[in-house]
Amino acid sequence: MRALHWDGERLTLALSHPAPKSDDVTALVRVRLAGICSTDLQILKGYMGFHGIPGHEFVGEVSDGPVELVGRRVVGEINFACGRCESCAGGFRRHCPNRRVMGILGADGSFAEYLSIPAENLHAVPGNLDNDEAVFIEPLAAAFEILEQVEIDFTSKVLVLGDGKLGLLCAQVLSLTGARVTLVGRHPKKLGLVKKFGIRTDVLADWRPTPVDVVIEATGSSTGLEMALSAARSRGTIVMKSTVAREHTLSLAPLVINEVTVVGSRCGRFPPALEALAQGKIAVKPLIEKVYPLSHGVDALQHAAQPGTLKVLLKI
Amino acid sequence: MRALHWDGERLTLALSHPAPKSDDVTALVRVRLAGICSTDLQILKGYMGFHGIPGHEFVGEVSDGPVELVGRRVVGEINFACGRCESCAGGFRRHCPNRRVMGILGADGSFAEYLSIPAENLHAVPGNLDNDEAVFIEPLAAAFEILEQVEIDFTSKVLVLGDGKLGLLCAQVLSLTGARVTLVGRHPKKLGLVKKFGIRTDVLADWRPTPVDVVIEATGSSTGLEMALSAARSRGTIVMKSTVAREHTLSLAPLVINEVTVVGSRCGRFPPALEALAQGKIAVKPLIEKVYPLSHGVDALQHAAQPGTLKVLLKI
Repeated sequence: MRALHWDGERLTLALSHPAPKSDDVTALVRVRLAGICSTDLQILKGYMGFHGIPGHEFVGEVSDGPVELVGRRVVGEINFACGRCESCAGGFRRHCPNRRVMGILGADGSFAEYLSIPAENLHAVPGNLDNDEAVFIEPLAAAFEILEQVEIDFTSKVLVLGDGKLGLLCAQVLSLTGARVTLVGRHPKKLGLVKKFGIRTDVLADWRPTPVDVVIEATGSSTGLEMALSAARSRGTIVMKSTVAREHTLSLAPLVINEVTVVGSRCGRFPPALEALAQGKIAVKPLIEKVYPLSHGVDALQHAAQPGTLKVLLKI
Repeated sequence: MRALHWDGERLTLALSHPAPKSDDVTALVRVRLAGICSTDLQILKGYMGFHGIPGHEFVGEVSDGPVELVGRRVVGEINFACGRCESCAGGFRRHCPNRRVMGILGADGSFAEYLSIPAENLHAVPGNLDNDEAVFIEPLAAAFEILEQVEIDFTSKVLVLGDGKLGLLCAQVLSLTGARVTLVGRHPKKLGLVKKFGIRTDVLADWRPTPVDVVIEATGSSTGLEMALSAARSRGTIVMKSTVAREHTLSLAPLVINEVTVVGSRCGRFPPALEALAQGKIAVKPLIEKVYPLSHGVDALQHAAQPGTLKVLLKI
């Protein structure tokens, strides 16, 4: 099959990569559309030391594996748990210490014609969702994860730092709670995408921090936490979303002095995201920057790496 | 009066420093015993840009001010709130943005014969407590603050990093919950002080991180958070106690990936600490390294700054 392959130094289009396998509990999925995430770009900078086929956002159809799934249009959760450890028994399968993570850690990903995934990770896509909406489920679930970790309601003042793809999704999701959400970013055009949802926006250059209850750090930058600390009120909460390969250098004294809580936040469950998307509560199509065929996948990742680029998709 | 004075460059013993004032709501306290805290040592490295009389741990007697207090033996909370802002109205006086902090920010401290303090900050010392126990109330309250921020009970695995003064107090306080507490530090002698309370101990050189529910970062070092991140389980909690003048350089990716929560933790309310100490639940006297007269205060702070030193007190 055709696949994009990262060998630790170069990303190349492999034309005859061995196809993955399926079995009674593992589905083979014919990928139709895959999304490029900032984490993929970090992987190309060495993050996680991953080698193989990157990609963890996809929608496709099951072509082989458990018979009841064959032919279904699906999206899939990216953490492949062992099912046998203490974390799995406790219901924290996403935190299984033995897990593989699609396109990130020990498992090939979605920048390929086919991928192999545990059947239990799959979710059927509601019929009213197009592929170019369903491909956003994984990052949208990561945005919904915030609501499972932090109490946010209509009384909350929330600041989202970063008008990248994840920041735009987080701002929309948190706005569903009735909270007063402000999105701060560098790009007036991107900020404009969420203005119609009642989200306040500020261009970074003009922004001055005022204390808020909750800050979502989605800058994708190693200076994001320091910015967030400047805006969190005493006893406020910072939700940290950015995973960057670089180290952070910052003073943590404000965290202690103001008794701020920093909550690391990664992947989320898919069902709340699927439901919100199927109900038309979140607009994802305006976030699409460009769709490339897999054959131009190397160009697609280069495009996605340009500052200010929104979601780049691979049509496969 | 005599006082230790920090001018931003040198700590000196002033022999005729102007005595502070009292009024209807402000007490004048004749300091009897003051404790030297790591924060004081950080101040001498430039932390908070403080100039004046350092010191925020003390026990003494009210010599002037509100009549009902005169003659009482007291300890005092260190945050002087404005009483008029939103934080104060909401009951978060310790986080008043207009606050002064004794010996740390905009208010002279306890390394002096007399100090001036809002009467509302004072707590009477129970008769059965000696001065050399009562002087530990402020750091002990900071240890109890953890229990107001994080749920810890007999099912919890807790790791305390740092066998300094605060680490030794935190280990004892958290052990009161029935939690399985392990204290890790550099000094077998200091670790030995808490072994009898059923606290496990590990010498840092031999310690290998295994995942725990809660890590208390009390290393006083800019590398403490990175150590704590290596030991917190997925979705675990790190309570950060160290305020250091230096910047931290670390990778925060583990925080996001493992969805760890980091809780900044500073001062606490005095009543729980006073009660535990009066009931003999916490042993503080073994933590005393040496008592100096105020006239040798400069030497006392130099002694306190030696690595591995326990609590140095000033008798005034």
